[in-house]
Amino acid sequence: MIQKLISKIQKTQAPIVVGLDPMLSYIPEQIQKKAFAEYGETLEGAAEAVWQYNKEIVDAVYDLVPAVKPQIAMYEQFGIEGLKAFKKTVDYCKSKDLVVIGDVKRGDIGSTSAAYAAGHLGRVQVGSHTYAGFDEDFATVNPYLGSDGIKPFIEVCRQEKKGLFILVKTSNPSSGEFQDRLIDGRPLYELVGEQVARWGEDCMGEAYSYIGAVVGATYPEMGKALRRIMPRSFILVPGYGAQGGKGADLVHFFNEDGLGAIVNSSRGIIAAYKQEKYAKFGAEHFAEASRAAVEDMAADIRSALENR
Amino acid sequence: MIQKLISKIQKTQAPIVVGLDPMLSYIPEQIQKKAFAEYGETLEGAAEAVWQYNKEIVDAVYDLVPAVKPQIAMYEQFGIEGLKAFKKTVDYCKSKDLVVIGDVKRGDIGSTSAAYAAGHLGRVQVGSHTYAGFDEDFATVNPYLGSDGIKPFIEVCRQEKKGLFILVKTSNPSSGEFQDRLIDGRPLYELVGEQVARWGEDCMGEAYSYIGAVVGATYPEMGKALRRIMPRSFILVPGYGAQGGKGADLVHFFNEDGLGAIVNSSRGIIAAYKQEKYAKFGAEHFAEASRAAVEDMAADIRSALENR
Repeated sequence: MIQKLISKIQKTQAPIVVGLDPMLSYIPEQIQKKAFAEYGETLEGAAEAVWQYNKEIVDAVYDLVPAVKPQIAMYEQFGIEGLKAFKKTVDYCKSKDLVVIGDVKRGDIGSTSAAYAAGHLGRVQVGSHTYAGFDEDFATVNPYLGSDGIKPFIEVCRQEKKGLFILVKTSNPSSGEFQDRLIDGRPLYELVGEQVARWGEDCMGEAYSYIGAVVGATYPEMGKALRRIMPRSFILVPGYGAQGGKGADLVHFFNEDGLGAIVNSSRGIIAAYKQEKYAKFGAEHFAEASRAAVEDMAADIRSALENR
Repeated sequence: MIQKLISKIQKTQAPIVVGLDPMLSYIPEQIQKKAFAEYGETLEGAAEAVWQYNKEIVDAVYDLVPAVKPQIAMYEQFGIEGLKAFKKTVDYCKSKDLVVIGDVKRGDIGSTSAAYAAGHLGRVQVGSHTYAGFDEDFATVNPYLGSDGIKPFIEVCRQEKKGLFILVKTSNPSSGEFQDRLIDGRPLYELVGEQVARWGEDCMGEAYSYIGAVVGATYPEMGKALRRIMPRSFILVPGYGAQGGKGADLVHFFNEDGLGAIVNSSRGIIAAYKQEKYAKFGAEHFAEASRAAVEDMAADIRSALENR
C-alpha cells in the first residue's frame, strides 16, 4: 500500500490527503434539508447528510489527490448510524482508487490491539469464513502502550499489505505537555520517532517503510529533526491551513527526493466554501470550492518544495 | 456517576469490574451454533453469539458487582454488526443498574476529542434534537495528546455527570517503553498521574473525583506511588488474574477508607469455565462458572484488604 500511495503522489504531483472530518455545521443547508426530509432530524438523517456531503466532495477531488483521511470520531459521534456512513465513505473512496487512511488513533494491549487491527486493516475469523470489518488501507495508532500495542498492528499490515501512521508529535497546542518532556536530554517525541524508525525497518516497501509517523505541520523545527531520525518513514502531516501550518513550514517534512510526507487538510478543503477566498462558489457549489482549495494547496506545496 | 459507583461498591462489598471482552474462542459451542444457525457464519452471526454470551454472564453476575467494562475493540473487530452488539450490551447492563465503563481508549485533538466525548458519554445535536450515541457511564482515554485532548471529555463528564479513567501506567509488559522513562528523575507515568490529579481537582464527587486513572495490577509498587500522587482519583486496575495480578498486589491501589480502586478481570471471569478450577460447571453452565469466579475474586480482594 505504501507503493500505491507513493505512485499516486507522483502521478497527481500532490502530496495531499483530504481529511473527511464532517461536522454538521460544515454541511450546506440543501444537503441537510434533503437528508432530514427523508430520515427526520435523527442520527440516521445526520449520517445520510454526512455521507452525501462526503460523496460530493470525493467526486469533485478524487482525480487530484492520492488519499483521503476520514476521522472516525466525526462519525462515531452519531453512534451506529454514523459508523455506517464511515464504512460507506471508506468503501466509496476505495472504489475511486483513493488510498484510505483511517484516522482512528487506536492502541491498546496485545490481544486488544490485535482486535482493532483485524477490524480496521485486516480480517476476522467467523467459523470457517473471514470478513473485513472496516477495511481501511492505513490506520493511525497511539504509541503510549509501547511495542505490545503496536506489533499486532504491524503483523496485520505485513499480512494484508497495509500500513500505519504512529503518533509521534501531534499538531495541537498542548501536545508538548508530555511529548516534549526531556528524557536524557532529548524530548519524548524523538524517542518515539526512533522507535517508529526501528519498527519500520523490517517493513519496507521500496524506498519507504509502510510504518509511518504523524508529525504536526504546526511544529516545523521538530519536523526537521524527526525527518532525520526517521529517514525512511513516511510522515503524515496534519495541521495545514485551519490549524495554522503553511506551505513553507512543510518543506522540512520532505526528503530530498521530494517524497516522504503527505499533508492533510480537513476543514480548509471540505468547508472551503465558507472561506472568503472561495465564497464566490456559494454553498450550492461547495464541492467545486473544495476542488479549488485542493488545487491551491497543491500549488502552495509544490512552490515551497521548488523554492527550498 | 462516581457516587453511584462508590455506593454500589459499598453495597456489593466487591470493588470489581467484569471485563466484557468476548473473543469467539471463549464463547461456548452451544451459543455459537445457535447464532450461526440463525444468521450463518457471518459478522451478524458472530455479533449475535457475542451478545447472547454477554447476556448470560450479566444475568449471572449483575447482583454481585458494581460495574462492567466492555472492551470496544472486541466488538469493533466485527465491524458495524459488532458495534451493534456493543451498544446492546451497554444498554442491557444499564437496565440491570450496572455502571458501564466503556473501555474505548480514545483521545485526539480538541474538536475530535469533543466528538468522541459526545459519542460515548454525551449527546450530539441533530437539528433541534439531541441524541446519545453509545452512552456509557465512564470511558477510558489516552493522555498522549495532553490537556487539549482530555478537556473536551472532562467538559462532557461535568455536564452529563459521567466520568473518565485516564491511562497512566498500563498493565502490559512493554508499558515501560515510554511510560517509565525518566523526566527530571521521575518516570513519565508519575507526571501523567500528577496531571490526572490536577484535572480531577475541579471534578469532585464527595471524597473522590470523577476523573480517574488506569494503573495495571501487574505493577504494584508503581501503584503504591501513584496512589499517593493521586489520593482522590479512583483507580481502575486491569491485569488481575489472567495477566498475573493477585489480590495481595492490589492492596496498595486502595486508600485507607477501603475505597479508591476498582479491579478489572475479563478472561478470568467470562471464560472461567475453561479453567481447571471451574471445569466442573462445564461449557453448558459457563455463566455459573463466571459467578463462582466473581465470588472467589471478591473474597480474595476482601481478604487481602483485611490482612494489610
